[in-house]
Amino acid sequence: MPVRFAKRISNTKASEIREILKITQDPEIISFAGGLPAPELFPVDGIKKADAAVLDESGMMALQYTTTEGYDPLRTWIADRLNRKNATSMDKDNILITHGSQQALDIAGKVFLDEGDVVLCESPTYLAAITAFRSYGCRFVGIPTDDDGMIMSDLRKAIKENGNVKIIYVIPNFQNPTGRTWSLERRKELAKISSENCIAVIEDDPYGEIRFAGEDIISVQSFDPAGNVLSTGTFSKIFCPGFRIGWIAGDERIIKKFVLVKQGTDLQCNTFAQMTISKYLEQNDIDEHIGKIKETYRKRRDVAVRTMRETFPEGVRFTEPEGGLFAWVELPENINARDVLMKCLERKVAFVPGGSFFPNGGHENTLRINFSNMPEDRIVKGLRIMADVIKGFV
Amino acid sequence: MPVRFAKRISNTKASEIREILKITQDPEIISFAGGLPAPELFPVDGIKKADAAVLDESGMMALQYTTTEGYDPLRTWIADRLNRKNATSMDKDNILITHGSQQALDIAGKVFLDEGDVVLCESPTYLAAITAFRSYGCRFVGIPTDDDGMIMSDLRKAIKENGNVKIIYVIPNFQNPTGRTWSLERRKELAKISSENCIAVIEDDPYGEIRFAGEDIISVQSFDPAGNVLSTGTFSKIFCPGFRIGWIAGDERIIKKFVLVKQGTDLQCNTFAQMTISKYLEQNDIDEHIGKIKETYRKRRDVAVRTMRETFPEGVRFTEPEGGLFAWVELPENINARDVLMKCLERKVAFVPGGSFFPNGGHENTLRINFSNMPEDRIVKGLRIMADVIKGFV
Repeated sequence: MPVRFAKRISNTKASEIREILKITQDPEIISFAGGLPAPELFPVDGIKKADAAVLDESGMMALQYTTTEGYDPLRTWIADRLNRKNATSMDKDNILITHGSQQALDIAGKVFLDEGDVVLCESPTYLAAITAFRSYGCRFVGIPTDDDGMIMSDLRKAIKENGNVKIIYVIPNFQNPTGRTWSLERRKELAKISSENCIAVIEDDPYGEIRFAGEDIISVQSFDPAGNVLSTGTFSKIFCPGFRIGWIAGDERIIKKFVLVKQGTDLQCNTFAQMTISKYLEQNDIDEHIGKIKETYRKRRDVAVRTMRETFPEGVRFTEPEGGLFAWVELPENINARDVLMKCLERKVAFVPGGSFFPNGGHENTLRINFSNMPEDRIVKGLRIMADVIKGFV
Repeated sequence: MPVRFAKRISNTKASEIREILKITQDPEIISFAGGLPAPELFPVDGIKKADAAVLDESGMMALQYTTTEGYDPLRTWIADRLNRKNATSMDKDNILITHGSQQALDIAGKVFLDEGDVVLCESPTYLAAITAFRSYGCRFVGIPTDDDGMIMSDLRKAIKENGNVKIIYVIPNFQNPTGRTWSLERRKELAKISSENCIAVIEDDPYGEIRFAGEDIISVQSFDPAGNVLSTGTFSKIFCPGFRIGWIAGDERIIKKFVLVKQGTDLQCNTFAQMTISKYLEQNDIDEHIGKIKETYRKRRDVAVRTMRETFPEGVRFTEPEGGLFAWVELPENINARDVLMKCLERKVAFVPGGSFFPNGGHENTLRINFSNMPEDRIVKGLRIMADVIKGFV
């Protein structure tokens, strides 16, 4: 007889994206499926120099245990950067280093959610946030969004109708999966609603640094009078994802709870990785590096949008993101994106159907396109094949 | 008004050890408190060579996302080593790479525990395992132990009396905190009990490789006919803890659930760290390196045991571990180890009182001594001060 698992396990299934990603290990496949940064932009030489310096100068310390909170100079750097971008006034005590921003979401679930609590999120939203929160037994209510972000009247209504809302989860910059960006007004209003209702906001911001068009818009957190808005960030998109170093930033009183939970979860993040990033930031101009990323992604987005405009049949709509890694496609309502995917895979093109990004299902006519991970010629080739396949369904 | 936290948060408090460790950052303090390996034994040069090779040969891959399961060559190495040590027959699919074995415990909690479930464990046991499991709302029943491990009649009784036992958690080699090692017979019997009752065993084995006296005893997992015993291990004690790389090994059907849960928790472990360790293992003889660690720790244990024997007053008992990092001290029952700690801290000596290692409290006359982290002269000096302080209480 097998052992018995926890109830939550019966609700956990493999991420469709990660399963598709396994198929796309085949280098012949043109894959719009992942959320992978362009590896040719990873600062391999800079990292090599930084980590040799760390080992030479303080090898024993870099390889030893450290505090759960994280490496202080790195925490200070993050606080300073957030302050400069958003006119907040944080210091290292407002920052906890996490294993990517994904871990920040998992810990948020553990800190805030009891079984039956409600999480309000954009609909659609980031798939792995749903997975992380769901493991703590919560229920999701998806709030409709438009081109300016979550619709605030719907948010207020959902808070009223659900007594036990514990988290409002949002991705205001270049949202995953839609690529959309919230307006300043919506950000202000969300901060106000959070404060009035004493509900924590998780402002997930993995892509905010990668804006290649339009103007930066400051964070929801900047407008928060109550200290209830937490923001997450990551070095995955501006540096490299392989190090698994991200953070959560917020009021010290809440961050302290996150530290306690992280302690029991995995003690701390990789000391050496934290020190290497910190050293790299000391030795290099990260903004120059981010500039290169923006330039490359902008070109890739341009070519993706142009190709979709030229080749996708009438009735197909798509977003034109001002930053980040993703665009969002809506097919005519009678077309199921999973059927399109099956046909595309036969022709060695992959993407992620949009249905799984909706916490409460539906919207099977949508799909997500990642444009950061491939050279322009393959983007054009892949989207032309997709256009051709879609035409077969119209 | 502040946000509301999950119920579990009110039960979470800072680890006493981690709090004591903060005090012991003062380099003047002679600290027996941590569980830190000796940093002077970290293979700094070997790591430098390995990571430069990884960046040169496959930098883009090392810095990119990888699979949740972990880096295949490292998984294979772990499976092979476990097979050689324990006569099991595992391959990479039996291994999930985790952020230290601590994360393996946290994921085990998430995989197995619903609120109200019971975890059976040695009493005393590893503090941070209690923290990890407790966050999933379980209850602990501590099973009495003697010099051969958990007392099996008590274990059987506890299983009968508690209908909802989901995990039996044990550390059979050089246990934390007692330093004791289970006999072969107890291991066999635990595997049998697990199989008969369909209860998962978590065999936590961070120290098994560090045996400096006596003969290796094979794992509980080797005797498991049902595939219900999971073992955890780590590179923290044989390589370095700063990388946060450990693993859980077990039947593929259970490991798959662990993979799903890890996916939602933090996607994957540091790609670069996994590849660096794998490269290091290829370029170096790890057994030679472990030999140096054993030699150093054996000397430190010898000097610690000798000093305690010579200086501790009558009525104080202590273990003489055959491996690992810890010895366990029992003071006369009327002495509270926390009072002893306060006096010791005044004289710049630290250790961890034993009470917090007991899941259901009590045993305030016990304490744990770490002997791996300091040179011999400081061990002697520190234990003499402790002896002096203890004499003031007798």
